[in-house]
Amino acid sequence: MTAAATQGISTRGFATNSPEAKFEPFNFVRREVGPNDVLIDIEYCGICHSDIHQAKNEWPDLMPATYPMVPGHEIIGRVSQVGDNVTKFKVGDAAGIGCFVDSCRTCGACTSGIEQYCMNLAAYTYNGTEMDRVTPTYGGYSDKYVIDENYALKVDVDGDLAGVAPLLCAGITTYSPLKRFNVGPGQKVGIVGLGGLGHMGVKLAKAMGADVTVFSTSPGKEADARKLGADNFVISKDAEAMGALRNSFNFILDTVSAAHDLMPYVGLLGYGGAMVVVGVPPEPSMFHQGSLIMGNRILAGSLIGGIHETQEMLDFCAKHNVTADVEVITPDRIEEAYDRTIKSDVRYRFVVDMKHA
Amino acid sequence: MTAAATQGISTRGFATNSPEAKFEPFNFVRREVGPNDVLIDIEYCGICHSDIHQAKNEWPDLMPATYPMVPGHEIIGRVSQVGDNVTKFKVGDAAGIGCFVDSCRTCGACTSGIEQYCMNLAAYTYNGTEMDRVTPTYGGYSDKYVIDENYALKVDVDGDLAGVAPLLCAGITTYSPLKRFNVGPGQKVGIVGLGGLGHMGVKLAKAMGADVTVFSTSPGKEADARKLGADNFVISKDAEAMGALRNSFNFILDTVSAAHDLMPYVGLLGYGGAMVVVGVPPEPSMFHQGSLIMGNRILAGSLIGGIHETQEMLDFCAKHNVTADVEVITPDRIEEAYDRTIKSDVRYRFVVDMKHA
Repeated sequence: MTAAATQGISTRGFATNSPEAKFEPFNFVRREVGPNDVLIDIEYCGICHSDIHQAKNEWPDLMPATYPMVPGHEIIGRVSQVGDNVTKFKVGDAAGIGCFVDSCRTCGACTSGIEQYCMNLAAYTYNGTEMDRVTPTYGGYSDKYVIDENYALKVDVDGDLAGVAPLLCAGITTYSPLKRFNVGPGQKVGIVGLGGLGHMGVKLAKAMGADVTVFSTSPGKEADARKLGADNFVISKDAEAMGALRNSFNFILDTVSAAHDLMPYVGLLGYGGAMVVVGVPPEPSMFHQGSLIMGNRILAGSLIGGIHETQEMLDFCAKHNVTADVEVITPDRIEEAYDRTIKSDVRYRFVVDMKHA
Repeated sequence: MTAAATQGISTRGFATNSPEAKFEPFNFVRREVGPNDVLIDIEYCGICHSDIHQAKNEWPDLMPATYPMVPGHEIIGRVSQVGDNVTKFKVGDAAGIGCFVDSCRTCGACTSGIEQYCMNLAAYTYNGTEMDRVTPTYGGYSDKYVIDENYALKVDVDGDLAGVAPLLCAGITTYSPLKRFNVGPGQKVGIVGLGGLGHMGVKLAKAMGADVTVFSTSPGKEADARKLGADNFVISKDAEAMGALRNSFNFILDTVSAAHDLMPYVGLLGYGGAMVVVGVPPEPSMFHQGSLIMGNRILAGSLIGGIHETQEMLDFCAKHNVTADVEVITPDRIEEAYDRTIKSDVRYRFVVDMKHA
């Protein structure tokens, strides 16, 4: 242990030590609060499917697992200490942390506000390293985080923060493409899949003023979809219903991670319409070039968002009263939550209560 | 024969009567010049690959062949007669005709200037019908065309018009996506394939001020690519050269019609970069969703352009002195030109001389 570490902030977390291991309490030390840092007492941390992939080392090429791993990048809490130079936060403020906690700040991506694409590689919130490329990062399944104020997000929400946590990843993942393709009033928007991402897509597209249709393979989700604000619900295997909607959508957000045929959805896009995918099936997807050429259609991808856009999303959600639908659990139920998340048995996001951890 | 037809304009064309038949002289009658019409004495007509597909009935579902067929939708000539209400043209003006000669003028597509997507189906220049849905249309392998002035294009070019003909299809097909994705100075643009479309793509992207790289499987095309204005030339099978260009392109136009792997090109796109396909391979293409998600990349398609945009393209070409590189043939050599076009043995477009037909 280094001298700096012994002077740091004692933190209680929950870590896994191998792809098969259970989560166990893991005490570690975060850095002292520097002049530009804030200390956040974490209240809730969402469980994102990518936590599961990384904890189980299922992305060995993309994001190889380093253990002990404390996952969690949908973090919300309150500031309990601020460094001398901090201007953005004061003690007691709600604050969030998303998928990264630092970046080089000088490359073209960072100076363009797309720090998630930092050309020197951002410091991921967990299963990564600080920009010193040595100090491991531990995520939000813990009770404290020390972070440069420039990478923490302001959250202007009264009351309980549990439903805010998933905005830090599921929220920005869906907000960014909706915004980029100018979703708004008078537009017909489709959301494919009603899981953690999809349910945020419905709420955000509605808040932006669009007419929203949910596409799902599960008839049982119709009531929920409408409760979330969807104007229409279509069973994607219903060829007649799908046929009636051809060429009529301005924008479709496909949140499904499993391999599936994109062509039925592309056919729903009107002239110049765009479909954005945010899931990463292991298998390649296929498309007919003619289906993009007819109608000048667009297929695109999207990856979270930069700090500025994430803040914009949080402000938008605060203004429109948008939060995630969550099931709050205690840290001893993380494995159960992982199992149920894999089975899509959650409406719509598990959030770990770290206040009483 | 109807009375109207007997009073019409005698036209000499070249038609095929079956997928296997040779082209033969075919005399027919175009309608009298109405108050809003112009009569164009055709000077040249380009040979587009879609002429071949339709003449040979290779698109039985999309565009079933009707015979006798007079193909040709890259038409350039001079106005020899104008109707009483015509204001856009006067006798002697150069005028062009592209892929369609009329449309419903009232649907959402027509009123938005994307007549190629007329919801009541545009009147294609050949192998279609007028908007009466009865009168067959005959294309530009002929010496005259009668067309509503609103669907004819103005061409402000002195001298020989042979190189202008291909702009009416190959030109607008490549101009429209370059324009839509804001190609301009300081941008790095890739053109995949150096055929009829690709060579127009190079010239247009250069005229727009971009830094242009041609990707080809044929080392022998490098000298030509550079003569056309390309700044760089890359053999697409050269993994090292391709690897060095990763994440560096703003825009890529893929003009290849044969099935090929798109992923090596998608990997060349930088953040938010777009690749537009304009070819229609019979087989589906595949992509990895992750390759679009990383970099917020775009895959899109594009189909010719509306009248307004086609005029804009012609004006742009006149201003920047852009024409196609053509090989002019007499009508008795259409079969030979078809055979050589299929083998990509043309630099870069055959144009049929109709002045002396």
